[in-house]
Amino acid sequence: MNFSRMFIPTLREVPADAMISSHQLMFRAGLIRKLANGLFVYLPLGLRSFRKVEQIIREEMNAIGALEIKPTVVVPGDLWKESGRWSAMGDELLRVKNRLGGDFVLSPTAEEAFTAIVRDELSSYKQLPLNFYQINTKYRDEIRPRYGVMRGREFTMKDAYSYHATEESLDQTYQAMGQAYRRIFQRCGLSVIPVKADSGAMGGSGSEEFMVESEVGDNTLILCSTCNYAANVEKAACKDDSPEPAPIPVSPLEKIDTPNVRTIEELCRFLNCNAQQFIKTLIYRAVNVEIDLQKAPGTQKLESRRLTLESPAVYPEVFFAVCIRGDLSVNEVKLAAVLKAQEVTLASDADVVRLTGAPVGFAGPVALNTIPVIADLSITKLNDAVAGALEADTHYRHLSFGRDFTPWLTTDVRTVVAGDYCPLCGKKVYEKKGNELGHIFKLGHKYTKTMHIRYLDETGAYQIPTMGCYGIGLDRTLASIIEEHHDQYGIMWPVSIAPYHVIIIPIPYDGEIKAAADALSSALEKAGIEVLVDDRSDRPGVKFIDADLIGIPFRIVMSKKNLPAVELKIRGKTESHLIPVGTIVEIVKNRIEKELEI
Amino acid sequence: MNFSRMFIPTLREVPADAMISSHQLMFRAGLIRKLANGLFVYLPLGLRSFRKVEQIIREEMNAIGALEIKPTVVVPGDLWKESGRWSAMGDELLRVKNRLGGDFVLSPTAEEAFTAIVRDELSSYKQLPLNFYQINTKYRDEIRPRYGVMRGREFTMKDAYSYHATEESLDQTYQAMGQAYRRIFQRCGLSVIPVKADSGAMGGSGSEEFMVESEVGDNTLILCSTCNYAANVEKAACKDDSPEPAPIPVSPLEKIDTPNVRTIEELCRFLNCNAQQFIKTLIYRAVNVEIDLQKAPGTQKLESRRLTLESPAVYPEVFFAVCIRGDLSVNEVKLAAVLKAQEVTLASDADVVRLTGAPVGFAGPVALNTIPVIADLSITKLNDAVAGALEADTHYRHLSFGRDFTPWLTTDVRTVVAGDYCPLCGKKVYEKKGNELGHIFKLGHKYTKTMHIRYLDETGAYQIPTMGCYGIGLDRTLASIIEEHHDQYGIMWPVSIAPYHVIIIPIPYDGEIKAAADALSSALEKAGIEVLVDDRSDRPGVKFIDADLIGIPFRIVMSKKNLPAVELKIRGKTESHLIPVGTIVEIVKNRIEKELEI
Repeated sequence: MNFSRMFIPTLREVPADAMISSHQLMFRAGLIRKLANGLFVYLPLGLRSFRKVEQIIREEMNAIGALEIKPTVVVPGDLWKESGRWSAMGDELLRVKNRLGGDFVLSPTAEEAFTAIVRDELSSYKQLPLNFYQINTKYRDEIRPRYGVMRGREFTMKDAYSYHATEESLDQTYQAMGQAYRRIFQRCGLSVIPVKADSGAMGGSGSEEFMVESEVGDNTLILCSTCNYAANVEKAACKDDSPEPAPIPVSPLEKIDTPNVRTIEELCRFLNCNAQQFIKTLIYRAVNVEIDLQKAPGTQKLESRRLTLESPAVYPEVFFAVCIRGDLSVNEVKLAAVLKAQEVTLASDADVVRLTGAPVGFAGPVALNTIPVIADLSITKLNDAVAGALEADTHYRHLSFGRDFTPWLTTDVRTVVAGDYCPLCGKKVYEKKGNELGHIFKLGHKYTKTMHIRYLDETGAYQIPTMGCYGIGLDRTLASIIEEHHDQYGIMWPVSIAPYHVIIIPIPYDGEIKAAADALSSALEKAGIEVLVDDRSDRPGVKFIDADLIGIPFRIVMSKKNLPAVELKIRGKTESHLIPVGTIVEIVKNRIEKELEI
Repeated sequence: MNFSRMFIPTLREVPADAMISSHQLMFRAGLIRKLANGLFVYLPLGLRSFRKVEQIIREEMNAIGALEIKPTVVVPGDLWKESGRWSAMGDELLRVKNRLGGDFVLSPTAEEAFTAIVRDELSSYKQLPLNFYQINTKYRDEIRPRYGVMRGREFTMKDAYSYHATEESLDQTYQAMGQAYRRIFQRCGLSVIPVKADSGAMGGSGSEEFMVESEVGDNTLILCSTCNYAANVEKAACKDDSPEPAPIPVSPLEKIDTPNVRTIEELCRFLNCNAQQFIKTLIYRAVNVEIDLQKAPGTQKLESRRLTLESPAVYPEVFFAVCIRGDLSVNEVKLAAVLKAQEVTLASDADVVRLTGAPVGFAGPVALNTIPVIADLSITKLNDAVAGALEADTHYRHLSFGRDFTPWLTTDVRTVVAGDYCPLCGKKVYEKKGNELGHIFKLGHKYTKTMHIRYLDETGAYQIPTMGCYGIGLDRTLASIIEEHHDQYGIMWPVSIAPYHVIIIPIPYDGEIKAAADALSSALEKAGIEVLVDDRSDRPGVKFIDADLIGIPFRIVMSKKNLPAVELKIRGKTESHLIPVGTIVEIVKNRIEKELEI
């Protein structure tokens, strides 16, 4: 392909709104353009690399026996009402009414559509397992799209859904997917960090996120360099680092006046103690809580309800007190997982006053019986602690966990931070920001139950299949490849994703050199190598700069001076080599084949 | 690929709502399933054929130098407001509001998106011509989707848009597209009827529709078997077949009483004349009329306006009288094209009474000066005609065109029907129903002007590029292939589109036969042939029925009885042949290669 026929509008300037390297380089190399905020167009060169990511994913999905299908992007809202997500999902779900008043959604994921398809076809256990995928347009009505295609509104996702008669069968597919994902990212030249979820928090199911490091990542990862523990902070645990308690509780519980003392720092100064001796008590409001509250204090009058006929009963609104060591903070995602709640937020000041009977700042676990008290593991060893006394300007001291109060529930809701101790090996962990490229997840019966999908087992009894889902974002994968493979001059494509393997720069593209360049291009193409010939009349310097910017792995310069040898330079290397034109095809072919081996 | 791993849910019954063969067979062969009205899912087998259509289109587009890009499906409404289509398009355009209140559309076509992209990049004539395409999801909010994927709500279209400095350059691309379309349909095994538009009606531009015959087609085609004239009835012309007028007008115009005479038939009986002597006068209401009305009667008070800043001035509402021979009918699409109107409908009875001063049924051209009178060519030779007299129960007779009235405009608005005379060769034409699979169209400056796209020419002056657009519906193409290639047993895929080239039916898939089938499958696949092995434990009869239904071109039956020979049968042929297993690969390979040559 000739450069001039390909439409590659390279830019010297960095667009003002492009904050990260991949966004900058995708614009500057002419891979994408912006149609509107969060809506991007892949130009010819960008689309070639995009298709290579797509094809790698397709090959690896087919290799594990997943079957590609093509549902619609626009999906009936009724299916989302069946699953409960119509009401459960927020404004990120783009809802559409058609001319007849019917509700539809622009798919952000497709659990409902796939389950509806399988529901119509599934009758017998003999058909299971089933494993379908699509590579299709998705839409998420991001309120603040940014970082180019890394977080756009419209994007392409490979999403697979599998259905099984047994947990063992689900696990088999789940493991195969995990392996396929590792191969996909490896073939894309990406260093991913597979992050396993704490199986406890997910209700016994498994889940694994595939992360790449990114300074602008949406996720915080907790990593251990000693034992390779890796967890999303939303699920990360750590080893207990509480100081050993005093041998015996020193004194009985004592109520003290603490006038004008508002913050933990002030209190520590006032009492000459440190934050680790303090029990911080926070009041949370939780929405649609699934955890059993029958024996919880203060919840007798709450009524539970079902969002859909088949979904479990939930309490629409419940308040909780969460007690944690004064130097730590509560992780709301972990808390929500413990409570099986849709959402958890700090209670309003008015609610705090109403529930604790005291101004904000004086909540504490002792004698708090209006709401259930949850204790983080970090306070269980405290036997000489300080806490609010449910009265203005008053605290307790010499408070002993278990002696002076007993929580309704003791669990882990602490936010793990760098410097905490690895839950596996006990060494200190560190933090990284990361972006999620892929996610595999054992869904269990969440959708299959609410959407009434069933089959007959060997004994003729109806059973509900168990389900898994597996996603990869294509645009984000492509951008992440550029994040990992670039230098100050431009992109450095891995051979597997490069829009072209070779760029030939003839100096000039005219006469004898033109003929030689065209002949070499044909010979390379005949060998299955993808070639871009820079046929433009620009100065060699301009061509070199563009070649580096668009990141073609092999650059061949042809000039009268060197013919019948040509100059081969590998992108990212400083040296170039003079090679006889007669052997260049073989050399490049071998290099490419070697690069494509994984 | 083994049949049992592919998920091919074949059906014996025809779904109740499937009216046409392709819809029935796509369901029965397990190619598609319905997610909702007008929303279909391609299952694995259907998707394979779909992708082959897609790939043929892609190859032919690339071959003529069109460049593939990937814009979004969701497009900013602002672009559609710029072009004027936001208000001009009806309810078929699915409009969406995002969470921030922004307007978006789900693209039914992409003139706006492509023009916006090119607008940002185009600066110099040196960049022209540009020719971009996408193969992407489209949405049309059909009020009554039917015939399966033939007229769905969500569908896939290849749409290309080209931009040019000169009409010659546009014509070159337009011609190349026309040739590419012919190759595409030929490679898909489709007999298409290319239908050229009357260039007059399209304002001097060119347009060609690619039709397939279909009993449920949306279009009526007027065809001549003598000279191959082919036209959409919306644009078809015919040779004048008016009887020669009497040598001189017989008598002066005469007003006569015609009490209780309402229909043309009653009038003919009453006056002992025939419908060909009658001038039928219809009152039409036209919306957004662009034709110049400065010298038209009764339009002095009308004011024109612009829908967008750059669009031409139009009259929001104009009434016209259209006079046509009593035995003919007015074609409203032709009329709208003449008037350059967005829409043309018969006026309401109240409007007819108001404008003609007479009850409905007595309109006529004589002395009608409240609105412009348009005469169809069919009445220009009448010099002893009958027409309404703008009074209740009254008609004129002995009316002579040109003597007793002069129309504001004389033009061709007649609906051509079977039996009319070909405008080219004068032989009788016939009618067929047809479906449009593709359309190529010279748009001129319609979008480039309203959307302010411009470039600098050789002299440094700003110019507006001229534009063409070129579409093919993929789903409809696939369904049409089945319409043309099936029998009572199922689909008969052309090799180019078949999901697999060969189906091997081992009887049974076990022991020695299984080993032989697997070996043959591997050998065929090594030769680049796509193979489905029916590994199911069903009876041979079931497998034969399914093989015919899903329409695989080559069926190879392997059984103990015949080994080391196998039985080869070509789909659609009645005889089968015993062929030594050692030569079968070569034979099938040669047949396939021959079929794929065009």
